[in-house]
Amino acid sequence: MSQVGLEMFQKAKFVQWLGVEILTLENGICQTKLTVREEFLQQDGFVHAGVLTTLADHSAGGAGSSLLAANERVLSVEFKTNFLRAAKSRELYCYSVCLKKGRSIAVAESEIYPSSETMMARDLRNLIAKSTVTLAVLT
Amino acid sequence: MSQVGLEMFQKAKFVQWLGVEILTLENGICQTKLTVREEFLQQDGFVHAGVLTTLADHSAGGAGSSLLAANERVLSVEFKTNFLRAAKSRELYCYSVCLKKGRSIAVAESEIYPSSETMMARDLRNLIAKSTVTLAVLT
Amino acid sequence: MSQVGLEMFQKAKFVQWLGVEILTLENGICQTKLTVREEFLQQDGFVHAGVLTTLADHSAGGAGSSLLAANERVLSVEFKTNFLRAAKSRELYCYSVCLKKGRSIAVAESEIYPSSETMMARDLRNLIAKSTVTLAVLT
Amino acid sequence: MSQVGLEMFQKAKFVQWLGVEILTLENGICQTKLTVREEFLQQDGFVHAGVLTTLADHSAGGAGSSLLAANERVLSVEFKTNFLRAAKSRELYCYSVCLKKGRSIAVAESEIYPSSETMMARDLRNLIAKSTVTLAVLT
Repeated sequence: MSQVGLEMFQKAKFVQWLGVEILTLENGICQTKLTVREEFLQQDGFVHAGVLTTLADHSAGGAGSSLLAANERVLSVEFKTNFLRAAKSRELYCYSVCLKKGRSIAVAESEIYPSSETMMARDLRNLIAKSTVTLAVLT
Repeated sequence: MSQVGLEMFQKAKFVQWLGVEILTLENGICQTKLTVREEFLQQDGFVHAGVLTTLADHSAGGAGSSLLAANERVLSVEFKTNFLRAAKSRELYCYSVCLKKGRSIAVAESEIYPSSETMMARDLRNLIAKSTVTLAVLT
Repeated sequence: MSQVGLEMFQKAKFVQWLGVEILTLENGICQTKLTVREEFLQQDGFVHAGVLTTLADHSAGGAGSSLLAANERVLSVEFKTNFLRAAKSRELYCYSVCLKKGRSIAVAESEIYPSSETMMARDLRNLIAKSTVTLAVLT
Repeated sequence: MSQVGLEMFQKAKFVQWLGVEILTLENGICQTKLTVREEFLQQDGFVHAGVLTTLADHSAGGAGSSLLAANERVLSVEFKTNFLRAAKSRELYCYSVCLKKGRSIAVAESEIYPSSETMMARDLRNLIAKSTVTLAVLT
């Protein structure tokens, strides 16, 4: 696993509080898992958009950071997320891939699925949310 | 205050857990306040992007919902947030305004500032984050 | 080919002026081609972001419209595009897929590549631009 | 007027072809005007989203470029645009303001209105489109 990326997860208290688990983190790809708790929900009983975007954003940062040199780190400049289907599963799986790692900018995208199987298959019929994340590469 | 909008805040457990306070909520405008706790931080000690987007998204939903009829409600379709300055203040203030309330779509934007004064003045030099949120209007 | 989608291309004068060609248009997927002309360029001699987003947006609309009933049509609510690599090829190829077709909202994404081969392979190393498009489904 | 910003408009062939006129360009603000021609329209007879985003993107670049040093220039990294109301006026006016000018990143937003008066008043009830644009600052 990428050491730079790993630290980004371990040192982020909000991500620790949520309980995001890293499944894979290397070569521009980051897969994560989140077990849903009751305090993550919004007014209709689904997972709040803010929890989904935290998962999508941080995993995208992981994907980008797995391509960094030891003296580099990434920081989110902006992201955009579409919420496609209500998040009502007990677990959430996020697949993030770095689309471009430039000298000062990286771009990654994240897809959130309701199960490990649908994530592995990248099954669009079950896609819960999709994010595109612009990262600044800092030295 | 808008009753539909108020319920959206009170029933959302994640927003309750964060401790988002409503300052104003009427006529397409929603102002909220969040007191920062240590578990909101990311790896560099600033407020995590996911906390900022939760505040921005939910306040935008409040702005939209303040224009709804009693049988309508809003749900986030997508949002995009730019992170302009590191969030290191102890409190965050969010100003949200509904740009358009259509029959099936509403659009709102949110600005996060580090103090009540900078929010009141909508002082761009201190703007921490800016979101645009697309909402579905459901009946 | 989807008849609803086809008309959307034939009746759009700006898309006709650009010269966008439809390669495939069915089952939620739309592939298009654009031959670059000198008047499409920006100040550095690359294709202008506005030309890229027109191609991405309209092709995404095509992908969505290929799933419509005869009495439905789509209209762009919003889109977001990341520009990953300078567009300096003589032709541009756009691959669009509909991620979700709901009753009132559809979401599609578009990827622009510099050649037919890189589009067919969806080769991320050559990806020029990536868009996510939210469409209103109107009756 | 900002010289760096001015050149960005004069050298961009696509923007010249559209006929974008600069009204003001200084101190982080850029106002532009576009007279609608028939070849700008989409399938329903309104101005195509791609024309609107070209105007919004290029004007945002102008707003950012007006704050640059002589050896700097800006390039769009990404943008997101919401289309709020059908563009059916004969002229379009765009108001762009730079929200932040950093060392390597700038962020600007653009609002498109149907008349000079509605732009001057920044009258949200007539807002046609709103964009947020992330710019890379290059040296």
